[in-house]
Amino acid sequence: MPTLTLIAFDADDTLWQNETQFRLTQARFEALLREHAEPEHLHDRLMAAERRNLGHYGYGVKGFMLSMIETAIEVTGGRIEARAIAEILSAGREMFQQPVELCPHAEATLRTLAESHQVIVITKGDLLDQERKIAQSGLGDLLHGVEIVSEKSASSYLSIFSRYGHPPARSMMVGNSVKSDVLPALAAGACAVHVPHHLTWDLERADPPRDHPGFHSIPDLSALPALVQSLAHLP
Amino acid sequence: MPTLTLIAFDADDTLWQNETQFRLTQARFEALLREHAEPEHLHDRLMAAERRNLGHYGYGVKGFMLSMIETAIEVTGGRIEARAIAEILSAGREMFQQPVELCPHAEATLRTLAESHQVIVITKGDLLDQERKIAQSGLGDLLHGVEIVSEKSASSYLSIFSRYGHPPARSMMVGNSVKSDVLPALAAGACAVHVPHHLTWDLERADPPRDHPGFHSIPDLSALPALVQSLAHLP
Repeated sequence: MPTLTLIAFDADDTLWQNETQFRLTQARFEALLREHAEPEHLHDRLMAAERRNLGHYGYGVKGFMLSMIETAIEVTGGRIEARAIAEILSAGREMFQQPVELCPHAEATLRTLAESHQVIVITKGDLLDQERKIAQSGLGDLLHGVEIVSEKSASSYLSIFSRYGHPPARSMMVGNSVKSDVLPALAAGACAVHVPHHLTWDLERADPPRDHPGFHSIPDLSALPALVQSLAHLP
Repeated sequence: MPTLTLIAFDADDTLWQNETQFRLTQARFEALLREHAEPEHLHDRLMAAERRNLGHYGYGVKGFMLSMIETAIEVTGGRIEARAIAEILSAGREMFQQPVELCPHAEATLRTLAESHQVIVITKGDLLDQERKIAQSGLGDLLHGVEIVSEKSASSYLSIFSRYGHPPARSMMVGNSVKSDVLPALAAGACAVHVPHHLTWDLERADPPRDHPGFHSIPDLSALPALVQSLAHLP
């Protein structure tokens, strides 16, 4: 394969923790509705609402808040009190204020790779919230660019790689989601590295590809520089 | 001045109607809370919530929905029924399904200018919703690029102009908001054209600049090609 020139990272649960916050907020939501619904039933209804609303709301905290409110009204048959909805709003707003907690080895790995490659972030989610997290992460100076997209598809990857001046064959996508980071990047002709996270949102689940020569999996980001170097030495 | 090479347009209420939908939804919101609050008082409280939440939510429909729900709980002292909140959710969701109505002369003006200039859109708002509107507007093929930003500042304009390869002195920003489209574009060194819209959101109000050589105002988009041509003929 040709030498890699661009390494693109997913952000949430690849460079910093994200799903943890969603799970904690969802636990508060479940506690709030304890008298009305079993946690498991509530989880299913919330998932269904998020899935139903994804085409309008896209990804991120605001859509999650709106889907929680909708689900709370739905599962209580409209009997939920406004006070409880105010608590959902306040739990959601707190998510925007959570400090950014980097994933293991994120900073060191970016610092190493940024010396030899163009390094960018490609992420979904709320525009302003992702910008806040980039700023608070302290990683901004290591990044050549940040792309916040509404959906990660083969065509959105292709258009980003080309905007930065790299053919897909010289580009690598690194992330925790097989569905968003691995499969569409491979379909675009790039190579893809899966870095599993112990928490993955239900809507991001997918089976990893089998026997794809461009697919790699590493236990955490500390293994990435060696992987990148080994690929450069292939014939 | 040097010949213009880049013409950037705001989208909402410059290329297509937007504030109209917000006003209609707000009227539904006021009708829903008629028994609890005078429309004017409600308007002020909603504005205050939107302003308070802007730093977390950014611009767009989802933040508007969340601020309406918060205001409804607040002005009713927590006595609002879940059924009414469900109606706010549903009024908000309908906004994502409104057909795109172009502003007068938008298509003809873009078509003319795209023959001689690079034409892009720079807009705020929800990522996915703005992409939907671009797609539905039918203007996509005339545009060299679309930039959806969390805030319009001199530095965000500079970075976009430069990404497209144009110095600010060769760039023009066209829009209905003095605060977001005119003042920061002038501060970036571009020229700016104000195209007033009869509806302007309270948080976008600002006084137009006085005696700034790069500032122009036109009654509607049909006057833009002639303005652009007249600027090219200046010494």
